[in-house]
Amino acid sequence: MKALFQDKPFICPKECPNGKAVKSLTQALLDRRATPHFKPDAVPGEYLETILQFGAQAPSGYNLQPWRFIVVRDKENRQRLKAAACDQEKVAEAPVVIIAFAIRDDWKNYLDAIFDESVRRGCAKPNMVPELKKQASEYLEKDIPQPVWLNRHTMIAVTTMMLVAETYGLDTAPMEGFDPAAVRNEFGLPENAEVVALLAVGFAQEPDKPYGGRFELSEIVHDEHFGKPWESRWKHADHLSRSMFDQIERKATEPVAPK
Amino acid sequence: MKALFQDKPFICPKECPNGKAVKSLTQALLDRRATPHFKPDAVPGEYLETILQFGAQAPSGYNLQPWRFIVVRDKENRQRLKAAACDQEKVAEAPVVIIAFAIRDDWKNYLDAIFDESVRRGCAKPNMVPELKKQASEYLEKDIPQPVWLNRHTMIAVTTMMLVAETYGLDTAPMEGFDPAAVRNEFGLPENAEVVALLAVGFAQEPDKPYGGRFELSEIVHDEHFGKPWESRWKHADHLSRSMFDQIERKATEPVAPK
Repeated sequence: MKALFQDKPFICPKECPNGKAVKSLTQALLDRRATPHFKPDAVPGEYLETILQFGAQAPSGYNLQPWRFIVVRDKENRQRLKAAACDQEKVAEAPVVIIAFAIRDDWKNYLDAIFDESVRRGCAKPNMVPELKKQASEYLEKDIPQPVWLNRHTMIAVTTMMLVAETYGLDTAPMEGFDPAAVRNEFGLPENAEVVALLAVGFAQEPDKPYGGRFELSEIVHDEHFGKPWESRWKHADHLSRSMFDQIERKATEPVAPK
Repeated sequence: MKALFQDKPFICPKECPNGKAVKSLTQALLDRRATPHFKPDAVPGEYLETILQFGAQAPSGYNLQPWRFIVVRDKENRQRLKAAACDQEKVAEAPVVIIAFAIRDDWKNYLDAIFDESVRRGCAKPNMVPELKKQASEYLEKDIPQPVWLNRHTMIAVTTMMLVAETYGLDTAPMEGFDPAAVRNEFGLPENAEVVALLAVGFAQEPDKPYGGRFELSEIVHDEHFGKPWESRWKHADHLSRSMFDQIERKATEPVAPK
């Protein structure tokens, strides 16, 4: 019988495909842009494997791990995916596009195995398992619409894969512009599959897209209670000890917003 | 008039609060565990600010950025949040708990400003804006249930914040065990707010929870088409050039699964 569970990965590439040092997450987040066009260069297999392995390490409620992926590299399949994805050129250009999906009610097929494994690894006491299974089932059948829950979880894994790729200097494009029924039909997914996102991975064609800006924290973060805007001290960082901070390297191509 | 938009952050702490080097993302993912209990030690302000700033850099469809957060640090408020979150002790223990939410139809209040900014920054051509606004509106009003879309996007920001915290050696616990109505009521959120997740941030009390294991890639990844299991070459990494790989440091406390 094939093994259902595995441990965490313990090796991963130690530098970027171009030989440069792996980026810190903060540098990767600064450099990240949704890539509009990709070069045809392939993503080396060990990087793709690493991206998938670390995506699979995402956390989930009751460790149910509802995320599923189709890795599309074949040229003809990428053309078919492009047609199902609003004809976005990057879908056919990128050497790898990952279709992230999740199947409704599929957790029921795994519930016993997951809790058995959980007991085996010392995460759950055997006498607690019936109650935990009941809790999980009630939550998923009554408390939350499954499409919401499946999207919520799958995006943890998608975001993790995107960021692992970016720290290795790869470029990515997360997408939600697709026709879910067409994707299901083209790639053999069952009717009850929620297609959550596409993630293209590869190497960007220059120039990158200009940066669109983000809301100020005072607009999106509330301090203790809704309606009390967060007062950002970031802007006053000059008053803090500068030795505590790294100046993050800005790309030469980084557009500077007009004042 | 206060500014609505900002650029990317350009400084961040250069080491962990304990003076150790910032972790690579892969090391952080290996070390990460949903923290069951937190020490009372505060998260230094510059780290919290950095976590929020980089969370705000998450990508979104049409740059609509629907994620919103309440930062809860006050002791009494954490007790109130705990009561709304299945009485989980970690909610009251953690020095910071971020309530991640998103408000239905709130994107309509920002649509004009976002596309104005997009034009200002050279991301969209002015003559394309009416069509882009129409596309965005049709997508959100017809093609996708808003709770699905709001959860999908908000989790990109939540995952980013969790991983930034982990690379700085902080410990986190993402949670979905809460009563959304109670959270709304206690923290003044409007009726149409989707409460997406809670993210506790702080320093773990030892010992950490045992690792629950994850599905083998062959179980969750399909190669080109649904039903064709991914054949992982990870397990055969010994056959690849070892010089390409880093051995990731395993925690001394890492439980080894019994065979």
